Amino acid sequence: MIRKLAVLTAAAVMAVTSFSVSAQTAQTAQERAIQYRQGVMKAQGWHAGNMAAQIRGTKPYEKEDFARSATFLAQLMHMSWDGFGPGTDKGAPTKAKPEIWTDNAKFKAAADNAIKATATLAQAAAGGNMDTIKAAFGEVGKACKGCHDDFQAK
Amino acid sequence: MIRKLAVLTAAAVMAVTSFSVSAQTAQTAQERAIQYRQGVMKAQGWHAGNMAAQIRGTKPYEKEDFARSATFLAQLMHMSWDGFGPGTDKGAPTKAKPEIWTDNAKFKAAADNAIKATATLAQAAAGGNMDTIKAAFGEVGKACKGCHDDFQAK
Repeated sequence: MIRKLAVLTAAAVMAVTSFSVSAQTAQTAQERAIQYRQGVMKAQGWHAGNMAAQIRGTKPYEKEDFARSATFLAQLMHMSWDGFGPGTDKGAPTKAKPEIWTDNAKFKAAADNAIKATATLAQAAAGGNMDTIKAAFGEVGKACKGCHDDFQAK
Repeated sequence: MIRKLAVLTAAAVMAVTSFSVSAQTAQTAQERAIQYRQGVMKAQGWHAGNMAAQIRGTKPYEKEDFARSATFLAQLMHMSWDGFGPGTDKGAPTKAKPEIWTDNAKFKAAADNAIKATATLAQAAAGGNMDTIKAAFGEVGKACKGCHDDFQAK
């Protein structure tokens, strides 16, 4: 048992080393945070785009595929905010406006709004009614656009 | 009611336009897929790094914070694979090896393995026993490293 635990701990240490080498080499905490939030938003954009194509009709609507993207978007919407911690207004190329940190309460409200809108969309997507989906998707679009208008530089 | 639906549909169309402008301008489907999967993996690396720091002790262990990262990592682990569709072996800078598409069954098995390992870690993290967490984290590290060794160019 002790030997087994020792092996497991060694594996954990190896894993830690592997992560630190692959994810964090020669990067500052600021760079990592900025690239993290940009990565999450890139993923959000992909799933939003997948749904947009099905609403627009350039890709056939498939309930399962649409709902999958809606669920992923709702999950991702909880994630990006961690990457906007204090001091991450610079340190890597970013379009984040200073207002994120100077008017953080407004930013947090926008975050909550986006989280709620995407949760509603995921519910609508599971239901499969296109009118309900379109309405919910419209609200998500407004939440994204509103936050970008206020907090993302052109 | 008809007017309300028309307004909602207009909002949905605006949302679609907004997404398509912000997320898809002048990008090929290949570029979008490659940047999507890279974004997801960047987000995975961030949360893995957050947990690694707490296991290593360079950041104090906080059960809630650790479990949050473990849950996010488990959710993210379902997402990246969509970005490895047919034809996405090129089209933007990528370290993806051809074996992803020539030995897709092996790649899918590695994906399933990583999904399972991160789900186990999320469970362990919710429990809060550090020995169990370390063992589960070690398995996640092996799953990540194994897949990168086989399918990611140096």
